[in-house]
Amino acid sequence: MWPRRDLIDLLGIEHPIVQAPMGGESTPEMAIAVSNAGGLGGLGCSFMSLDELRAKAEAIRAGTNRPFNLNFFAHPEPREYAELDAATRARVAPFYAELGLESVPERGVAAVDTFTEAKLSVLLDIRPRVTSFHFGLPPRPMVEALHDAGNLILCSATTVAEARFLAEAGVDAIIAQGWEAGGHRGTFETSFEDFGVGTLALVPQVVDAVDVPVIAAGGIADGRGIAAAFALGASGVQMGTAFLSCPEANIGDDHRAALRQARDDETRLTRAFSGRPARAQNSRYIEAMAEDRAALPDFPTMYGFSDPLREVSEKRGDSDFQFLLYGQAAALNRDLPAAELMERLIDEAQRALKPGS
Amino acid sequence: MWPRRDLIDLLGIEHPIVQAPMGGESTPEMAIAVSNAGGLGGLGCSFMSLDELRAKAEAIRAGTNRPFNLNFFAHPEPREYAELDAATRARVAPFYAELGLESVPERGVAAVDTFTEAKLSVLLDIRPRVTSFHFGLPPRPMVEALHDAGNLILCSATTVAEARFLAEAGVDAIIAQGWEAGGHRGTFETSFEDFGVGTLALVPQVVDAVDVPVIAAGGIADGRGIAAAFALGASGVQMGTAFLSCPEANIGDDHRAALRQARDDETRLTRAFSGRPARAQNSRYIEAMAEDRAALPDFPTMYGFSDPLREVSEKRGDSDFQFLLYGQAAALNRDLPAAELMERLIDEAQRALKPGS
Repeated sequence: MWPRRDLIDLLGIEHPIVQAPMGGESTPEMAIAVSNAGGLGGLGCSFMSLDELRAKAEAIRAGTNRPFNLNFFAHPEPREYAELDAATRARVAPFYAELGLESVPERGVAAVDTFTEAKLSVLLDIRPRVTSFHFGLPPRPMVEALHDAGNLILCSATTVAEARFLAEAGVDAIIAQGWEAGGHRGTFETSFEDFGVGTLALVPQVVDAVDVPVIAAGGIADGRGIAAAFALGASGVQMGTAFLSCPEANIGDDHRAALRQARDDETRLTRAFSGRPARAQNSRYIEAMAEDRAALPDFPTMYGFSDPLREVSEKRGDSDFQFLLYGQAAALNRDLPAAELMERLIDEAQRALKPGS
Repeated sequence: MWPRRDLIDLLGIEHPIVQAPMGGESTPEMAIAVSNAGGLGGLGCSFMSLDELRAKAEAIRAGTNRPFNLNFFAHPEPREYAELDAATRARVAPFYAELGLESVPERGVAAVDTFTEAKLSVLLDIRPRVTSFHFGLPPRPMVEALHDAGNLILCSATTVAEARFLAEAGVDAIIAQGWEAGGHRGTFETSFEDFGVGTLALVPQVVDAVDVPVIAAGGIADGRGIAAAFALGASGVQMGTAFLSCPEANIGDDHRAALRQARDDETRLTRAFSGRPARAQNSRYIEAMAEDRAALPDFPTMYGFSDPLREVSEKRGDSDFQFLLYGQAAALNRDLPAAELMERLIDEAQRALKPGS
């Protein structure tokens, strides 16, 4: 049924569709639906407390006996630069004034932990089949502990050099994340500047460079994209934006409305919310912050400066400061429950994989 | 042999591979080899005098009795802004000083004509099967005159909106040019900023939006990319960078050496040479000019400020100011004569199009 089976066999799944474990937007319900449909459901756990992580992972386990994936950011500790904080305060101050917010926080805050020993312990208890990382890998002993416990490890690469690094570090499969992808770019080694490699160029070069299965990500929205990924040499796909329109997605009404009206050319990479580049719908804030190339505080401390603005915008229902993450193929989204979307994707991919169709 | 035949039948060719008619780099020899191999060979004619255009087109006609493509820029006349010229002079002056050049030109020069009545007359004489345009279309009467003379017209679109515009304007097939593509982006309607849509996301959305055949371009380097383009719904591909390594390409030794060592993540979009965004190997000059987002003179007047710098760099053989155009999949290039490359591409694509391969 699928032209390449190494990823399917490795993960113990039926269909080579990985649901992207999106930070705030994925839910246990989504992961359960995707895993039960034969794909790899997943949950982004970086914003969770340890208790929440445990509870949600157990909820997934209760809902499916198939493999699922828990995802974590593995970013370096943010550096503290008083000067950069001060400069950033000055840049965002006019927006705070405009929104009637009292005062800009003195400094950014690290609202998101990197992967910690405490999280590792929970994982070693829960033993999901798959753990995936974004922004690189945690220290080698943690990777080894997960492997020893029978976990398979996936990680995103945005360049061939990053893919080589991950393969050498023992990752079991590599997510080749192209320029088109919504949300945070997984970039961990190369420049944050606009060098982003498109999925169609990236995938075959990564396939040639590493021996592990490659999962194509970025701009894949329907069966045509899945078939294209296989043609490029990938063994599977990761899709995030496509699942954002599912009722199982934890997104606000404005985000859902934006997806329904999405266009190909309206998203932009921005560091202005988190400190790391993420693809989101362009907005007045993103545009304004892109006017110069001044440095911003490290991920995730920048959230400390942007969160108050975003919260006001969400309450008011305007889009000036909202962080509406999605990729360049969002216009192809379908409003379907995750299980139905999976059926549709599998069917479309099968047809697109047949030549002469 | 090919899963979709509308483009092949329309153009009267055998294989759905369009060799990008690159401005300075394509040659009659390249076009002849590609057309004789069953693809659509092409020549970028914007930098030519009328006599040169006529002579080279006749050389192609003498070398093949198959269809070929002559390409022209169709940009609006550059505006004259004394202030912008002055600001640009100030920005590039340190580089001029560093290279020992006497003085920065007073103003930019339009080294490249847009599509003119005189060029149209030559085309109406020569009657190539195909004329393609970049940076939009010439005025409607010129398009109609070409159509009336039996010319088919292709044009690049970089967004769905541009593709719709071209389809309504009567273009016979649309080149969906993704972010990965080397050389100048064909963008003519939407912003020049870094909104560029990746090929994998762009192609299916363009296919859904228009009724004419879609030619995928950007990041396609081998048979895998061709098969992927068909999976996405395209009826053919345009490949430029892949043909740059052919002996028929008119490129310097430094450019050829750069292609041999190309990496996925080393090119960048820059307006610093021509005034319009083009993908080229990143360099000290490109990096420096990207530090702010200040406006630059319109295409093509910016060439007037950059050409003297480029010429010194070419002579010295360093890469600081060279304009080495190529796309994100250049690392997949093969040093083969164009006819052999065509054979290889066709063979690879056939294999990649068969599922289970």
